[in-house]
Amino acid sequence: MKIVVDGMGGDHSPTEIVKGCVDAIKEMTAHITIVGDETQIQLELEKYDYDKSRLSVIPTSEVITNDDKPVKAVRKKKDSSIVVGMNMVKDKEADVFISAGNTGAIMTGALFIIGRISGIDRPVIASIFPGIKPFLLVDSGANAECKPHNLVEFGIMGSIYSEKVLGMENPSVALVNIGEEASKGTQTIQTAFELMKETHLNFQGNIEAREVPEGKANVVVCDGFVGNVILKLSEGIADLFINLLKKKLKESFLVKIGALIMSGKLKEMSKELDYSEYGGAPILGVKGAVIKMHGSSKAKAVKNAILRAQPYVENNVVEMIHDEVSQIESIKSKEMKDG
Amino acid sequence: MKIVVDGMGGDHSPTEIVKGCVDAIKEMTAHITIVGDETQIQLELEKYDYDKSRLSVIPTSEVITNDDKPVKAVRKKKDSSIVVGMNMVKDKEADVFISAGNTGAIMTGALFIIGRISGIDRPVIASIFPGIKPFLLVDSGANAECKPHNLVEFGIMGSIYSEKVLGMENPSVALVNIGEEASKGTQTIQTAFELMKETHLNFQGNIEAREVPEGKANVVVCDGFVGNVILKLSEGIADLFINLLKKKLKESFLVKIGALIMSGKLKEMSKELDYSEYGGAPILGVKGAVIKMHGSSKAKAVKNAILRAQPYVENNVVEMIHDEVSQIESIKSKEMKDG
Repeated sequence: MKIVVDGMGGDHSPTEIVKGCVDAIKEMTAHITIVGDETQIQLELEKYDYDKSRLSVIPTSEVITNDDKPVKAVRKKKDSSIVVGMNMVKDKEADVFISAGNTGAIMTGALFIIGRISGIDRPVIASIFPGIKPFLLVDSGANAECKPHNLVEFGIMGSIYSEKVLGMENPSVALVNIGEEASKGTQTIQTAFELMKETHLNFQGNIEAREVPEGKANVVVCDGFVGNVILKLSEGIADLFINLLKKKLKESFLVKIGALIMSGKLKEMSKELDYSEYGGAPILGVKGAVIKMHGSSKAKAVKNAILRAQPYVENNVVEMIHDEVSQIESIKSKEMKDG
Repeated sequence: MKIVVDGMGGDHSPTEIVKGCVDAIKEMTAHITIVGDETQIQLELEKYDYDKSRLSVIPTSEVITNDDKPVKAVRKKKDSSIVVGMNMVKDKEADVFISAGNTGAIMTGALFIIGRISGIDRPVIASIFPGIKPFLLVDSGANAECKPHNLVEFGIMGSIYSEKVLGMENPSVALVNIGEEASKGTQTIQTAFELMKETHLNFQGNIEAREVPEGKANVVVCDGFVGNVILKLSEGIADLFINLLKKKLKESFLVKIGALIMSGKLKEMSKELDYSEYGGAPILGVKGAVIKMHGSSKAKAVKNAILRAQPYVENNVVEMIHDEVSQIESIKSKEMKDG
């Protein structure tokens, strides 16, 4: 398997990206190519002892930053790590591209360079939400406005990924809504609910936001606006907890002792809520495997994203989605008839 | 001031409702009427010593449950506590109605019995979100689908309530979006952003969900779908934290000791995250004061909701919203011109 990793994206590049790659090849047999600023990457690589036959660098001269406008950046910066990496997947020189860079540019590159699977309307970002029972959140931010059949596409693609990559058997799929009844929510969600019932999915109906974190469904479907709110708000609430806890802990010596005794457990707890255990988020619905890592990914998250790329590629998730297109086409025609 | 309280709504009625009313009249000079099953309510009242000239009961024979369909229930159950209470506000026999009952029925009753303020399109539920810096979330669940000018209405009504009832000076108002730039999000939110700039509001632009819990804005505006997700997901994440913590605490004796030392602080912390400190959520945009309490409200939450009704009524929030209608009308005509 050939993996290409963006050496330039994210808050800790290339230091943590390179370390993550070195750590990953020790646990797998794949070949990794890092694309990006050769001087900087080589400087990092020199710190480590690793199998040089399985880790190489392709130099690029441009960088797409988080301030760049996605469409313009992908068009103009032909020698950026994102564009070069995407082209390698398109030209079958690599099996998967992994980046912690500008989300919009990764999405745009996946769409314009690799291209949509014919019949898929809206490729999507599927994030693994950590917790007691991790689940897949799809769409987690790509498409702010969706039609009912887009939500069904997300459910079908998310279900395949959950089964083949996350090892969930017959994954349960649910729609985020403001109540459990089929009559709740917007017209879009009500129609999506009816269309979902027509698929082969293990569709469980609507799920309220309160039940989302407990992992009541394996695949949680919503539009990208709501998905973004779910991901970001969860981070915000976690921050609020930690800040309140810190404020309280400043208040007494005895309490500090208590916190010290508990600190190992609190760390374990935050590990269970840590996205980096789960690596990256796949872009589903394009003709190649692409993984978007969190911008603040450190070496562990990078390593985990690379390791998770293996079942994504080897279990032919992209081809399996392609094979489901006929099911999606039939859903689309039903939506047209009903709408 | 005359307050009417629904003795029958919520998970702990009438026990906790009655206790909350008794506790409240000790801290204010208002008169409280409890509507509901007379026998049950009197049985509870007998437990307490209180000023009988300021707390009376109006018996009703019917109850609207959470399983009732709101519109049908409000139409048919004329002698339910919700319908009787709403009629008292409509007929100026009471200044405010407070209930922990069926949210849909309260909203329906407010709309059909008390009626919209002329010029207000969509009355709304505004919830106080607790935390380090509490803020007002509006819409927190009433209107799943909104037009741009509805969001502006929510901002104007929320701003008045925040200033007059929560004591926030020149409250800052922000729109929930998936990025800070004016070009982000759905078409509805992009238009609302432009319309917001035309108002007298202290409009701060877009706010991402991650920043919402920290109280970066005093009034957080979104449609009722997103508002429901924000409220419910926050509860869900809090539950997830507590469950993880409990799981960890079972694992070692020393950790239990640490937790014991910290327990007072953890309790204080959960108090800061406790909605019951802030009582109820006002329904804004109708021709009378109505407060919806959380279904699981206990006596403290009931008491706080009653106490907060005082500035809501005495500062003429309903009339102030009425006076802003001309501003809202001008926004509506701008939306029509642009749309």
